[in-house]
Amino acid sequence: MKDRISRVLENMKKSGLEQMIVSDPKSVWYLTGVDIEPYERLFALLLRTDGNHVFFLNVLFAVENTGFEEIWFSDTDDYMALVAEKIDGSKPLGIDKEWPARFLIPLLQRCPGAAPVLASDCVDDCRAVKDETEKALMREASRVNDEVITLAEKQVKPGITELELAEFIEREYKKAGASGPSFNTIVAFGPNAADPHHEPDGTVLKAGECVLVDMGCIKDRYCSDMTRTWFCGFVTEEESAVYELVRRANEAAEALVRPGVRLCDVDAAARDVIAGAGYGEYFTHRLGHFIGQADHEKGDVSAANEAVCVPGMVFSIEPGIYLPGKFGVRIEDLVIVTDDGCEVINKVDKGLKVLG
Amino acid sequence: MKDRISRVLENMKKSGLEQMIVSDPKSVWYLTGVDIEPYERLFALLLRTDGNHVFFLNVLFAVENTGFEEIWFSDTDDYMALVAEKIDGSKPLGIDKEWPARFLIPLLQRCPGAAPVLASDCVDDCRAVKDETEKALMREASRVNDEVITLAEKQVKPGITELELAEFIEREYKKAGASGPSFNTIVAFGPNAADPHHEPDGTVLKAGECVLVDMGCIKDRYCSDMTRTWFCGFVTEEESAVYELVRRANEAAEALVRPGVRLCDVDAAARDVIAGAGYGEYFTHRLGHFIGQADHEKGDVSAANEAVCVPGMVFSIEPGIYLPGKFGVRIEDLVIVTDDGCEVINKVDKGLKVLG
Repeated sequence: MKDRISRVLENMKKSGLEQMIVSDPKSVWYLTGVDIEPYERLFALLLRTDGNHVFFLNVLFAVENTGFEEIWFSDTDDYMALVAEKIDGSKPLGIDKEWPARFLIPLLQRCPGAAPVLASDCVDDCRAVKDETEKALMREASRVNDEVITLAEKQVKPGITELELAEFIEREYKKAGASGPSFNTIVAFGPNAADPHHEPDGTVLKAGECVLVDMGCIKDRYCSDMTRTWFCGFVTEEESAVYELVRRANEAAEALVRPGVRLCDVDAAARDVIAGAGYGEYFTHRLGHFIGQADHEKGDVSAANEAVCVPGMVFSIEPGIYLPGKFGVRIEDLVIVTDDGCEVINKVDKGLKVLG
Repeated sequence: MKDRISRVLENMKKSGLEQMIVSDPKSVWYLTGVDIEPYERLFALLLRTDGNHVFFLNVLFAVENTGFEEIWFSDTDDYMALVAEKIDGSKPLGIDKEWPARFLIPLLQRCPGAAPVLASDCVDDCRAVKDETEKALMREASRVNDEVITLAEKQVKPGITELELAEFIEREYKKAGASGPSFNTIVAFGPNAADPHHEPDGTVLKAGECVLVDMGCIKDRYCSDMTRTWFCGFVTEEESAVYELVRRANEAAEALVRPGVRLCDVDAAARDVIAGAGYGEYFTHRLGHFIGQADHEKGDVSAANEAVCVPGMVFSIEPGIYLPGKFGVRIEDLVIVTDDGCEVINKVDKGLKVLG
């Protein structure tokens, strides 16, 4: 974790910051190992490039020996005064982007000379590049996802509802040792799959429909996320052709990922395959998003992102084709950028499957 | 809703504010009827005491004809510049307490003369006093809660687990037309009930144990919240005595509620009954909290709150006695302050019940 803090301090220096308040509990955990859900209470780590970091902790938090200078306070203390005392009021102050006004305004009133600067990127850019510990946790969360999707496959038969399949998946996550889903599981049958964000409902599966399942779990804080699209009973020629197209798009993007390649070019690799077959207008979203402790973290794989792949980045590759009123196909993997390519960390195969 | 805005403007004037940004989606809905879940996007209503209010809306929001001046923007616009244009940069600017730094900091950079002031109370103090429409919605949410707790009672028998009973309740809410629970349902058996915030787990109910159920649902945006404590199979003399004590504390507090009575005195009315019987140290929390669109809203019934009851306030009355290692009893109702007393809006009775 010292290495993580060093990387954040480097980013702060590049941004001209000597001090920064880190308040996102996931970021604080990432930098300190201290795991607190503060709800409405103040929970903050003041990082300083001189190395004199300060932890602000409520006496109600079950924490000890953080290894940092600790300032403890109770709900009735003037805790923003305690924070202000540790700020250099003559210098810019980095602030986490989600810090609420109820902390920021009282702090600024006490430190009128400390110009606030949005500085989450200093941490988020580090979190985007996973270290070995994190990669192992990401692989494990995806291993559980593989295990559960394999069970879910066996539930697919005419008569099951979207909600039943989604609830089955969420129950199996817990049995498999995950703490829960990393987002609301998407199960969409037939025309419902043409909405990329369809919420599972009482729709009953009929033979001849597609079954799109977008699912992920949280295991030991880290998230998995995968989409597979199957067909129930039989598959039409059009469905089969669209499926193979999406699969080729997915594989073309994955084949391109390696250090130095721009994320927008990875997006284009998939998009070109789909557009080349005349389906461009039906691929309506970006190719992927970064992922880690949260299902969606800073960073994406889109036409707008000219940043380049760096070893340790973890993101999704999830091309889709959505034909309104008919069906939809999405195939999503998570990849870790390696020294010379990428590692796909979910392992269930992507061949066309007719189930039930 | 015009009346609601007028009340907020009065509060702003009392606070010396001519302009205020309302960003809590529940507050915006309360004042405008516009129902948006903006996620990470800007969604704000600028209230001005001169009546020239301005709505800031992303083109992705499904909204039309708000009746306010509307400023529309897309994700790629410099939308904070659009907000800054409408701010009087020479005057204090009220800000919602949860507004995140990623909006507040860019706005302050553009309006360095507009001193930010935490101003949520201007809206929250209005939301604490429900109008007739809201009272009807609060009653309906509690009616559904009554319906579901009556079904839950019938599930109580040795062998059921806390999680099973909690999941039963949450399923029945949906069948009864609620959108879901208003908080994570608490089910606690025997010694688990001595922890006021116990989370339901695999604990199996045994004859002779208490069954504490703290449950609430959301129906048409408004919340219910009720606690009942039953006994499985048989009840000991001590349990029975503690139960009756808590019931008397609950009823003493409810009997005191009327306009002009201080909330701290309502808290004391219950606390005195429990302390008088020697159990004071086992009643470890405040008597109640305000409730409305959120399960916990601004305002509480505690020793620290010297504000007085006003007709239309809605809050919980929930005394409890928690005996570590043994059992716990809590009895919670929601009340609406009326012109001459209060109305208890959940109706299931509070007599001692031995079930299963």
